[in-house]
Amino acid sequence: MPIHSMWDDFPEIKDELAESYAVMEKKVHIRNKEVEQVIFDLLRSGGKLLRPAYFILFSRFGNTKTQNHKQITHAAASLEILHMATLVHDDIIDDSPTRRGSPTVQSKYGKDIAVYTGDFLFAVYFGLIADSTESLSTIRLNAFVMKRILLGELDQMHLRYNTEITLRQYLRNINGKTAQLFSLSCLQGAKIGQANLAVTTSSQHIGHNIGIAFQILDDVLDYTKDSESLKKPVLEDMKQGVYSLPLILALRGNKKKFDPFLSKGPNMSDEDVQIVSDLVSQYGGVDEAKQLAKRYTDKALKAIRLLPERPEKAVLYQLTKQLLHRDY
Amino acid sequence: MPIHSMWDDFPEIKDELAESYAVMEKKVHIRNKEVEQVIFDLLRSGGKLLRPAYFILFSRFGNTKTQNHKQITHAAASLEILHMATLVHDDIIDDSPTRRGSPTVQSKYGKDIAVYTGDFLFAVYFGLIADSTESLSTIRLNAFVMKRILLGELDQMHLRYNTEITLRQYLRNINGKTAQLFSLSCLQGAKIGQANLAVTTSSQHIGHNIGIAFQILDDVLDYTKDSESLKKPVLEDMKQGVYSLPLILALRGNKKKFDPFLSKGPNMSDEDVQIVSDLVSQYGGVDEAKQLAKRYTDKALKAIRLLPERPEKAVLYQLTKQLLHRDY
Repeated sequence: MPIHSMWDDFPEIKDELAESYAVMEKKVHIRNKEVEQVIFDLLRSGGKLLRPAYFILFSRFGNTKTQNHKQITHAAASLEILHMATLVHDDIIDDSPTRRGSPTVQSKYGKDIAVYTGDFLFAVYFGLIADSTESLSTIRLNAFVMKRILLGELDQMHLRYNTEITLRQYLRNINGKTAQLFSLSCLQGAKIGQANLAVTTSSQHIGHNIGIAFQILDDVLDYTKDSESLKKPVLEDMKQGVYSLPLILALRGNKKKFDPFLSKGPNMSDEDVQIVSDLVSQYGGVDEAKQLAKRYTDKALKAIRLLPERPEKAVLYQLTKQLLHRDY
Repeated sequence: MPIHSMWDDFPEIKDELAESYAVMEKKVHIRNKEVEQVIFDLLRSGGKLLRPAYFILFSRFGNTKTQNHKQITHAAASLEILHMATLVHDDIIDDSPTRRGSPTVQSKYGKDIAVYTGDFLFAVYFGLIADSTESLSTIRLNAFVMKRILLGELDQMHLRYNTEITLRQYLRNINGKTAQLFSLSCLQGAKIGQANLAVTTSSQHIGHNIGIAFQILDDVLDYTKDSESLKKPVLEDMKQGVYSLPLILALRGNKKKFDPFLSKGPNMSDEDVQIVSDLVSQYGGVDEAKQLAKRYTDKALKAIRLLPERPEKAVLYQLTKQLLHRDY
């Protein structure tokens, strides 16, 4: 199974990424054929392997001669598997009908399989980490980040249907649910590559800013793309009470305009959702959100420019630019 | 919070067990107060800490002078936390209304909190493992066992409402869902205690047999105890299609007698359940299951008698005897 075609433009890391993908395919074998099928479907429905890619890029900023290739591919795989595990469980919470254009595990196989598939992926992730490091501090770091990711998800759940949600709360949520894993991917790459302290510190910062910008742009897409090209139901989040940045910004000072629709909660009609979406654009929520994403993107790009000269530096810059100047 | 009163009879390990419990209480703190409360409720509703106890006992069979006390209490805690994580997720699958006499996380707080509480406990477990070992092989062993536990749960789910379920399939299921963790607890104890190879090998065998006997007796209790003294709804499993040993044994050659009731599946009435329960006793299912449990108990006790002489040997023997000659 080939990896996403976007990597044809990045020959410097394509092979290592493909090997990491092969590690994933190998490690998710399980006697229960239903769960195995579920995971293969997920793997093959086109995850972009962004987290492994950032990991691999940062691993090249240290001493590439002493690197253990097996450790690199296994660590890269572990990051994507952790990402998948959280996606599967999030879809249970959200009762999402689709993910990556295909039905979610829960909607296709039911809640039970979804719970255990996620748990199995956590176990695979756990095993991959052990295969990718000799350092217990890496294990501790992973356990810490796993907790932070869950905290982000819990915070988001806690704030559902809350029209008073602040920018600060939103940023805290997406830090947990998205930026932490990007940050871990970059940091772990720098560490496994034995990069110097300046690069290691910067890697975490770069990953964080990429993660925040990435999530904001993902939330913006909900308001700017139609359902078909997005391959997921547009504004599903809104009905579920997950209010993202464009709406949060548009609500400022205009709460009364939104209340008649948002107060219906899960019973919002498709028409209500469309009206709210139009109001969000009208009150500048989409534009302001894009501006904020740009600030985080610029921070990331600026920090990348300050990294030591390596062939991978240009790749990192190009990938980040391409990723965060998405078509919106 | 004091640990279960049963440990008053085991002063040799009571203190270390209480310290392990304190580690658990300390490690489950989380900003989300709802999840924290859920976990404290679980901790305080009287888990017996059997897995940590077996771990501690086996850790005493090596060189107790070189032992790292912090590692012991953290490893002991990790085993109970892993157990709790699987319980919370199993209750989602089973839609169980109660556990340990209290409402399950799912029935009290909903599916969403239950999924994340289990995930958070996996992360805590992961962190505790990193704090309890310097050996990556321990991490690998834990990842492996975690997968086996999930496989057991999946197998059990897969065989629901299947009246053709064999003894062999049942044993495989309970090996995964129960015996693996008992076995890991004993093995990890022997390893952390640097016990010799004979003890290490035997520890795994002893843990396995204790786990199998323990689960069979738990399943027997469903047929012999009333709901109040068991603190859980009797035969909840049957309606959910989880057919345990007494029923499996009674079904042999008598399938036609059971079919009119079991074929109702989840729609069995309380009366149906009572009739099936009576049939199970009548066809010897309960007695045969007890005999099989006794065979596993005897194997465990025999292997314990062969362990080297240590003060803990008598404790191990007494605890196992007490545990597996439960009041049924």
